[in-house]
Amino acid sequence: MCKTHVLSVSAAKAPFEKATIERRQLRPDDVSIDIKFSGICHSDIHSAHGDWAGGIFPMVPGHEIAGIVKAVGEKVTKFAVGDRVGVGCYVDSCGECEYCLQGEEQHCSKGFVATYNSLDYEGNPTYGGYSQNIVVTERFVVHIPDRMELDAASPLLCAGITTYSPLKRWKAGPGKKVAILGMGGLGHVAIQFAHAMGAEVTVLSRAKGKENEALGFGADHYFSTLDPEIFTMLAGRFDLILNTVSAPIDVDAYLSLLRVDGTLINVGAPAEPSQYNVFSLIMSRRSIAGSLVGGLLETQEMLDYAAAHGIKPQIEVIRADQVDEAYERILRSDVRYRFVIDISTL
Amino acid sequence: MCKTHVLSVSAAKAPFEKATIERRQLRPDDVSIDIKFSGICHSDIHSAHGDWAGGIFPMVPGHEIAGIVKAVGEKVTKFAVGDRVGVGCYVDSCGECEYCLQGEEQHCSKGFVATYNSLDYEGNPTYGGYSQNIVVTERFVVHIPDRMELDAASPLLCAGITTYSPLKRWKAGPGKKVAILGMGGLGHVAIQFAHAMGAEVTVLSRAKGKENEALGFGADHYFSTLDPEIFTMLAGRFDLILNTVSAPIDVDAYLSLLRVDGTLINVGAPAEPSQYNVFSLIMSRRSIAGSLVGGLLETQEMLDYAAAHGIKPQIEVIRADQVDEAYERILRSDVRYRFVIDISTL
Repeated sequence: MCKTHVLSVSAAKAPFEKATIERRQLRPDDVSIDIKFSGICHSDIHSAHGDWAGGIFPMVPGHEIAGIVKAVGEKVTKFAVGDRVGVGCYVDSCGECEYCLQGEEQHCSKGFVATYNSLDYEGNPTYGGYSQNIVVTERFVVHIPDRMELDAASPLLCAGITTYSPLKRWKAGPGKKVAILGMGGLGHVAIQFAHAMGAEVTVLSRAKGKENEALGFGADHYFSTLDPEIFTMLAGRFDLILNTVSAPIDVDAYLSLLRVDGTLINVGAPAEPSQYNVFSLIMSRRSIAGSLVGGLLETQEMLDYAAAHGIKPQIEVIRADQVDEAYERILRSDVRYRFVIDISTL
Repeated sequence: MCKTHVLSVSAAKAPFEKATIERRQLRPDDVSIDIKFSGICHSDIHSAHGDWAGGIFPMVPGHEIAGIVKAVGEKVTKFAVGDRVGVGCYVDSCGECEYCLQGEEQHCSKGFVATYNSLDYEGNPTYGGYSQNIVVTERFVVHIPDRMELDAASPLLCAGITTYSPLKRWKAGPGKKVAILGMGGLGHVAIQFAHAMGAEVTVLSRAKGKENEALGFGADHYFSTLDPEIFTMLAGRFDLILNTVSAPIDVDAYLSLLRVDGTLINVGAPAEPSQYNVFSLIMSRRSIAGSLVGGLLETQEMLDYAAAHGIKPQIEVIRADQVDEAYERILRSDVRYRFVIDISTL
């Protein structure tokens, strides 16, 4: 066992405080990582605030982890001390089910072990990336490409794969019209991926002042969803709408913007139920889908793709003592576009 | 102009009465059809009862039409007098948009002209198949295969293509587990198609007494949806659920029966909005989709496929003076499985 300093919350909505936890003894296939940067995902807030059922406290959030390998177990083959590495949303899966064998560990039949706020297969709680060190089985660790800065890399481990995976699966590419709904932590990365894949990219965002930034990320068009006329103007236009908003939306209104065979893909998850009229689907053979991060091979592919195409989250690096304030700012949408904790300040 | 006898309703929920309407003068590309049988679709009831907005009265329902060619315009090439033919849910489309050019006339950008309760492109109301004769552009007429009886063929023009098209598009076939939700006019045909395509077919129906009939149609398994335990027993089982029920369902409960990447396809359309939780989609990358009949080439393909595989709606042939009673019986689910009007009794 090895003690490490963390930022933790003792109960739902409690402020963050510095604490110490123990990471497990290095197993033969484990990698010990000194964390350098940890991104703040909106789901960290939901978890730390107890918005979702089953919160495990004290809680150490963080599943956008970038760091340097400190030590490796004797059977580790993919990593060496000093490697630049990342860890995303999960740290274990059964490894035996059809989905694990297909490299879709996020859909493991046994249920993956989340990086934090989860119980591992031995029943021990997991603690995430707001921490100086983490120990993870090598299969759940990815390489961060050399040309990618560690701080900007960290949000890709969740926001990156969450948007890359569905854009690729639903074939965003040349000749396709893709709308990115919401331009926050996920949305601003999604624009860059969809643009790099060759799609015509339209940003639909409440904000009226983000147009220039959207075009800078590679968007071709920008519309404020506060203008009701866009629903007439853009009717039947898009092959895909990637919904990165985690608040409820008017599903039928957005379905009406889809072409025949178009798909509204949800990657943000409101706690409230959503409503749709079946006619919105039937009349143009549309679909509503959901997508959850991606598998490990695809996560590595995403990082390599991002490095090759210069795709980079726009981040604000903060100190460990600024996390509570950062949560408040995220809740009032005052972030462009991702907070990343500099773990050296912990 | 040519007078023809019809069954019409003068206003929403009025009883059917015999009446006379005029069919248009034969145009060069028109086919005049003496209707022999006309199926009763659940949507006829919604239309005649004014359940949906925009009913045009007097109304002559019917879009499951089987008959014999009586006359053809001078430019007609595909049909000759005496041919056995069918007409389905629409009788015109623009012919020029990308969807018409792809043979997906049901998604015509201009909007197709429905067989009844619609206005044609000149602004005249259309009247459907509860009629002795209909005049239709040859492009919207299909051949009924020789080995298929005309009476049993008629429901295929709507119930058949409505189920065949999505089953084929979503790749029902060997190795796929397909559930058919609802075993009525659409469902009992869907079972036969899914079975012929090679899928493992499970019927989910409220009725507790239809199991033997379901197995007779080719189902491998049958479960009553009134038994809450099936939602545990069948969790994560199906690649596809074809929902033929036009009443609202518990969408999340049925989504939970889908495997990763599974799709719930709606072909029935409740008037009320449906509700789902986005987590039901995200956690297993599931989709909710809708599908609307099919194109003309596909409708012909479906009829040929049904003839080749012995797929046949189970019908109850009724007289013209029994239509009101038939509507009442459909509303209390007292039909196995489709009423077909013998037009010779009109």
